[in-house]
Amino acid sequence: MLNPVTPEFLDALRAALPEGTLRAQKDGELDDPRGRHVGLAAIVAQPRSTDEVATIARLCHEAGVGIVPLGGGTGLVLGQVAHSGPAPVVISFERMTAVRAVYPTENAMVVEAGAILHDVQAAAEAVDRLFPLSLASEGSCRIGGNLATNAGGLNVLRYGNTRDLCLGLEVVMADGTIWHGLKRLRKDNTGYDLKNLMIGSEGTLGIITAATLRLFPRPTHEAAAIFVVDNPQGAIDLLALAQATVGEGISAFEMMSGVGLDFLTETLPDVRQPFGTNPDWSVLIDLGLSGESDPQEMLLALFEKAHAAELVSDGVISQNETQRQQFWSVREHIPVGNRNIGSISSHDISIPLSRIPDFIPEGIAKLQALGDVRINCFGHLGDGNLHYNVFPAKGRDRKDFDDIRGAVKKCVHDLTHAYDGSVSAEHGVGRLKVEDLERYQDPVKLAAMRSIKQALDPKGVLNPGAVLRAL
Amino acid sequence: MLNPVTPEFLDALRAALPEGTLRAQKDGELDDPRGRHVGLAAIVAQPRSTDEVATIARLCHEAGVGIVPLGGGTGLVLGQVAHSGPAPVVISFERMTAVRAVYPTENAMVVEAGAILHDVQAAAEAVDRLFPLSLASEGSCRIGGNLATNAGGLNVLRYGNTRDLCLGLEVVMADGTIWHGLKRLRKDNTGYDLKNLMIGSEGTLGIITAATLRLFPRPTHEAAAIFVVDNPQGAIDLLALAQATVGEGISAFEMMSGVGLDFLTETLPDVRQPFGTNPDWSVLIDLGLSGESDPQEMLLALFEKAHAAELVSDGVISQNETQRQQFWSVREHIPVGNRNIGSISSHDISIPLSRIPDFIPEGIAKLQALGDVRINCFGHLGDGNLHYNVFPAKGRDRKDFDDIRGAVKKCVHDLTHAYDGSVSAEHGVGRLKVEDLERYQDPVKLAAMRSIKQALDPKGVLNPGAVLRAL
Repeated sequence: MLNPVTPEFLDALRAALPEGTLRAQKDGELDDPRGRHVGLAAIVAQPRSTDEVATIARLCHEAGVGIVPLGGGTGLVLGQVAHSGPAPVVISFERMTAVRAVYPTENAMVVEAGAILHDVQAAAEAVDRLFPLSLASEGSCRIGGNLATNAGGLNVLRYGNTRDLCLGLEVVMADGTIWHGLKRLRKDNTGYDLKNLMIGSEGTLGIITAATLRLFPRPTHEAAAIFVVDNPQGAIDLLALAQATVGEGISAFEMMSGVGLDFLTETLPDVRQPFGTNPDWSVLIDLGLSGESDPQEMLLALFEKAHAAELVSDGVISQNETQRQQFWSVREHIPVGNRNIGSISSHDISIPLSRIPDFIPEGIAKLQALGDVRINCFGHLGDGNLHYNVFPAKGRDRKDFDDIRGAVKKCVHDLTHAYDGSVSAEHGVGRLKVEDLERYQDPVKLAAMRSIKQALDPKGVLNPGAVLRAL
Repeated sequence: MLNPVTPEFLDALRAALPEGTLRAQKDGELDDPRGRHVGLAAIVAQPRSTDEVATIARLCHEAGVGIVPLGGGTGLVLGQVAHSGPAPVVISFERMTAVRAVYPTENAMVVEAGAILHDVQAAAEAVDRLFPLSLASEGSCRIGGNLATNAGGLNVLRYGNTRDLCLGLEVVMADGTIWHGLKRLRKDNTGYDLKNLMIGSEGTLGIITAATLRLFPRPTHEAAAIFVVDNPQGAIDLLALAQATVGEGISAFEMMSGVGLDFLTETLPDVRQPFGTNPDWSVLIDLGLSGESDPQEMLLALFEKAHAAELVSDGVISQNETQRQQFWSVREHIPVGNRNIGSISSHDISIPLSRIPDFIPEGIAKLQALGDVRINCFGHLGDGNLHYNVFPAKGRDRKDFDDIRGAVKKCVHDLTHAYDGSVSAEHGVGRLKVEDLERYQDPVKLAAMRSIKQALDPKGVLNPGAVLRAL
């Protein structure tokens, strides 16, 4: 059991840190972005250095006080929102935002955990490199949070998840010791993969304070297309054809449903949609090529092949960057449209690619048996990652569905599990999905996770209650 | 402390397993390929199924008997060679070689740990896919060993290390429970990354019995070139130019030194070398492209650009697959040439790419101060991975250098450490580099590794003495 923060503990913490390191909680900074809970904080620490983080961790560890690391606060599963138990010390990374070093020759850079993702992208661009992690909250999320949650986003198909973009870490461990692991090597087989264990552990095994990130050459020519397909199977066949035709140049392959496009038409009429009638299923393909290749030409060739194979019935190809951004704007506004309509329940799932064409209609049928609902199924099809969100039928109020919300979620997650999928593809477990983890995760893996937590954080001070139930 | 295998334990093991599962050690199967040690085995088990592996593990765990998993036995750091302590039960995977399932649409396949790497490659090719892991021992190493050691090889630059090629694992844990983790998802953020913790743990945290592997589209056009550069800096500049010019199509970028080519001339005159005089430094570039692109044309364009920039002085481009194989034959025979000459000490190191041009001459100078030696420095430059091997000067006998072997190794490893490198880039720790790990690894990481080992294998039965000192 953890201890509450006492006045004596606060005095000791204050005495050990430079003036101004501790402050009260700011209005709203610990609110769940989806409005379900508000996070507790006995105090917020805003350290300037790894050593200060280590001091805080050491004192909390000695006193048995919980620590919750805070990045941009954009996580969707309450990983940063400790809403029960003794109020913890929240460590905000708002002052640890430095880009410590950039190595363009090595395609690597070292950044502090508090760097905002957009600033990391910009620092890479400043040396003519690409840091490919890209997601809706990039203007406010911080790289430490992206690493802690192994964030996914729009470019996973080509560049991988956040863990694939990280070469090394600096981590403050539960007892306040510092692992200096900011290597910038592509190959290093000297012992267990502590880096990947920390990434995605959501602050429960260590506090990430800095990271070495991988950079990539910037594609020199980019273009996007939206192709209309008959159904999800058509989208998957198109993906295979695209991979065979244009190879590694596919940066993103996003599926959109007519339901989601209708939400845009209804609530965001200013978003320019490419087709007169919203197609039931369409795919956004983004190409980024190096050298002399012409992405428009390749997309046109792909369209012709796909049309000849009766995989696509209509399509548009961007002729310039403005058009490409317009296409992306459609995709990027889908979550906004969803919020405008108001979902009954939202799900971030992944399914083995070849089973998606069966999964989607089976899920829709099962859900419609529960009530009068619409399903907006969209997302990162190239990765098998669907956002499978359930809404009231047109004209109905989401409040009428409060009593079936639990059943809706269980229906989607049970089916996902039956299809060998994951009930959290990219958002993580946080505090929202602890029970899901207990229900669906392999029991031997779960036991191993508990042993590892016990080994690295025996007092359970690190982000208590996230991922695993608090001790 | 582990217990020796008793006749009673052997009886219990025999009774719990199908007839013929246990056998005596075969001649040579536990020999270190570099001839330093011979492995001990109280008995060799050759299970046919994961359940049989689990039974063996459970009984060993209960009795406190050590287990050494055995793949192809090709590891170079004694990971499979338990040469001290009580003779363990060796689990050979020679009967668990099935390809359980192939999913071409998903670019995934499920294989058992005993499948020989070459057979895995062939199973992928049979469905027109590529499994890109490729290394010298591919004809005899087994995929379970590749995973346990996170093998590197020739295509890491493009496709990553073995861990990057694995989507899921089935693992028998120390106590004989089975983690059923054969997911085939690109995105799954449901808890700690046990998969990557197992990969590269060299059988000390669990016994890998099967894996879901990633497949890739096969490049449709391939070509290779060997370009002559002035020095390692020239090779690194050429790599950057190649990445900017031809992008992701570079499958391999291997540096060769004149010392290594001279060894071929001297001991393997049948290997066709492309230049009349062996260049001091040259680079093998392999391109694999999809779609309509012409790799010869791209290599020619690269040569012209590089020549204009005075980065390359000479070069050859393969005009057909036979020539491409001839170029690769040069690279692939370098380790054979090394064995023919006989090294004083061999090293598998990685260095941050931008520091390699300083590292190589500094290392040569320091080593030549120790004795009359030649250095063959070659390898996977694109990954910063050098094989930095030290030989007697021409006409000298390696026996004359026995007394400086330790100093040579320490010189290379100290310098590698000073350059923020790794003393084991791709071969792992095994039993050979346990002391190196203790000397060079970050102490906080080392402490975390020991805690994790204790948590997942409290009795220390799994591959005792590998990676970490036996309890």
